[in-house]
Amino acid sequence: MALTEFELISRFFSRPETEREDVVLGIGDDCALLQVPAGMELAVSIDTLVEAIHFPPDTEPESLGHKALAVNLSDLAAMGAVPAWATLALTLPHSDSVWLEAFSRGFASLARRYQVQLIGGDTTRGPLNITVQVHGLLPAGAALRRDGAQPGDLIAVTGPLGDAGLALLALQNKYELAEFDSELRQRLEWPMPRLEVGQSLRGIARSAIDISDGLLADLGHIAEASGVGATLRLARLPLSRGVARYVKETGDWSLPLSAGDDYELCFSVPPARRSEAEHKALRAGCKLAWIGVIDVDPGIRCLTADDDLLDPVSRGYEHFHHP
Amino acid sequence: MALTEFELISRFFSRPETEREDVVLGIGDDCALLQVPAGMELAVSIDTLVEAIHFPPDTEPESLGHKALAVNLSDLAAMGAVPAWATLALTLPHSDSVWLEAFSRGFASLARRYQVQLIGGDTTRGPLNITVQVHGLLPAGAALRRDGAQPGDLIAVTGPLGDAGLALLALQNKYELAEFDSELRQRLEWPMPRLEVGQSLRGIARSAIDISDGLLADLGHIAEASGVGATLRLARLPLSRGVARYVKETGDWSLPLSAGDDYELCFSVPPARRSEAEHKALRAGCKLAWIGVIDVDPGIRCLTADDDLLDPVSRGYEHFHHP
Repeated sequence: MALTEFELISRFFSRPETEREDVVLGIGDDCALLQVPAGMELAVSIDTLVEAIHFPPDTEPESLGHKALAVNLSDLAAMGAVPAWATLALTLPHSDSVWLEAFSRGFASLARRYQVQLIGGDTTRGPLNITVQVHGLLPAGAALRRDGAQPGDLIAVTGPLGDAGLALLALQNKYELAEFDSELRQRLEWPMPRLEVGQSLRGIARSAIDISDGLLADLGHIAEASGVGATLRLARLPLSRGVARYVKETGDWSLPLSAGDDYELCFSVPPARRSEAEHKALRAGCKLAWIGVIDVDPGIRCLTADDDLLDPVSRGYEHFHHP
Repeated sequence: MALTEFELISRFFSRPETEREDVVLGIGDDCALLQVPAGMELAVSIDTLVEAIHFPPDTEPESLGHKALAVNLSDLAAMGAVPAWATLALTLPHSDSVWLEAFSRGFASLARRYQVQLIGGDTTRGPLNITVQVHGLLPAGAALRRDGAQPGDLIAVTGPLGDAGLALLALQNKYELAEFDSELRQRLEWPMPRLEVGQSLRGIARSAIDISDGLLADLGHIAEASGVGATLRLARLPLSRGVARYVKETGDWSLPLSAGDDYELCFSVPPARRSEAEHKALRAGCKLAWIGVIDVDPGIRCLTADDDLLDPVSRGYEHFHHP
C-alpha cells in the first residue's frame, strides 16, 4: 500500500536538518509557528520546478532536492536576506522511498549549510512537481531591490555566465564539448546560491537580482523597475573556457546572455563604491566582473569589442523560452 | 505566442485584491518583504491541489481559485490565526486567459473577504498543479495546537460532516440524491474556512484541527499529538439531511467519519468552558455540536445509539484514501 501523505512527510522530512530557536512549532500541526525579531523584515519567495520543463526526467533526485532549495535561496541572496525557514510542496507520481531518500538528502544538505529549517510541507500524488518557499530575514529597509538602479551605476556579476546552459546543451547532445567535466555539470545541477555576497552588498548595491532567466532578461527587470537602461560590454562578461569556446565557434552569445539557470547575482553600485563592493565580495569568496553601466535610455544594449551593437539573433532571444 | 511567466503573473495576479500596510514590497521583485508586529507569531501553511486527485478535470476554475485559498485559510483557522498574506505557485498545461481570469476571480474574492494580500508567486508550465501558502498572525503563545487535548475534554465540531463527500459521490454518479441542491455542491466546491470561530476559540480550546482528511483521521492527529484517545457518539454528529439519509440507507458512516474535505474545525475544551465556547462560536456565526469526549485510551472509538462500538467497515477506513 502506498504511504499516506502523513507517513511520507514524517518519514523523510521530519528529521530536523536544522533546529532553529525562532521556530516555535515545526512540522506536524496545521501551521508552523515562527518568530520574527523586532526590527527585522521577512523576505519570502516561492519557486516551482516541473519535470521536463526545468529538468530532464532522468535527473538525479539528490541534485533535484538541492536545486529546488538552491533556486529559492538564490532569491533571498538577491535581496541580501539571511535564510531562515523553508516549506516544501512535493507532488510525486508514486511513493518511491529510494527517490525520496535521495531527494531529501540533497535538500537537507543545503539546508544544513545555511541553517534553514524545513517547517512545513504537503506531499500529494500526481505528475512530478516541486515547489519550495523560502523565508529569510533582514534588517528593515536594508533589502536589495530591483528598483534602485541609477544612471551611471556600474553593473557587476558574481561569476561566469552560460555554464548551466552549456551543460544542458551537452546533456541534450546538441553540442559536443571538448571536455564535459564535473565542474560544468555541477553548475547546472548543483547551483550554489550567492548568499554570502548578497548579504555583504547590503548598503552598497543600489539594485540587485539573481540570474535565473538569463542576464538580458534579469538585468532587463532591474532596468524596467528602475526606469533606466543599460549598456554591456561583451568582452567583460566572465566566461568559463567552455562557454568562451562555444561563443568563439558559433558567434552566438545566447549562452551567457539568455540561457539562465546560473544563479549568479547581477547588481549595480555607484562608481564611488566599486572598490568597496569588490572588497566585500572577495571576502565573501567571490570575484566580481564589471560588465557595463546603467544609463538613461530604456533597454539593454550589448557592445562588441569593436563597439558595435550585437544583433538580436546573436543575443539569443529566440533560443531560450522560459515558460 | 504563449504568455511568459512574467506576463501571466502581472496580468492576472498583480491587481491587488487587498493592499496591506504590513507589505513593504509585494509581487515583482525576487522576494516579497513583510513586517510582523512585535509580540506576534507568524503562522504558515502550504497545500497543493492536484487535478484528478483533489478535483475532477472539469472543475470550474473560479471554484478552484476559491478552494485553493480556502483549504489553506482553513489551516490558519485551526490555529486561531488571522490571515495576512498568500503566495501562489501555479503550474498550467498552457496559457489560458479565460481559465486564469476565472481562477483569479475566485481566489481574489476570498482573499478580499479576509484581507489577504497575494505577495508572490511562480507560474510554470506542466500538468495542472495549484500550490498556495498562507501566512497568518497571532499573539505569541496563543495558537490552538493539536497537542493540548486532555482526558475529560469535550469534543466539538463547527458544522455538518460528510457533505463534501456526498456531493462528490453524486457528481461521480455513485449515489443518487433525492435533491442535489446548490448548497450541497457549495460544500464541496466553495468551502468556507472557519476563521472567525477559530480566532474566537483562542484561550478556550485546548486543541484544534481542521477536518480535511475526515473526522477520524484528523481527530486521530489530535489524539496522537496529545497522547490521548477519544470516544465519539454517532448520534451527536451533525449531519445534513442528505448525509443522514445516506447513512440510514446504507448503514455506512464513512461520509461523516472519513470522507473529509468539509473544512469544519474539530476542537476540545475543558467541560467548564463549554458554554463559553458555545457563546463565542455563536457570535462567530457557528452552532457547535458536542460529539464526544477525550479519554485516556489511545485510538478513536465510535459508539452507536445502542452504546455498541461501530465496526471498522462502517467507519469507512477503506473507502477514502488520501494520497
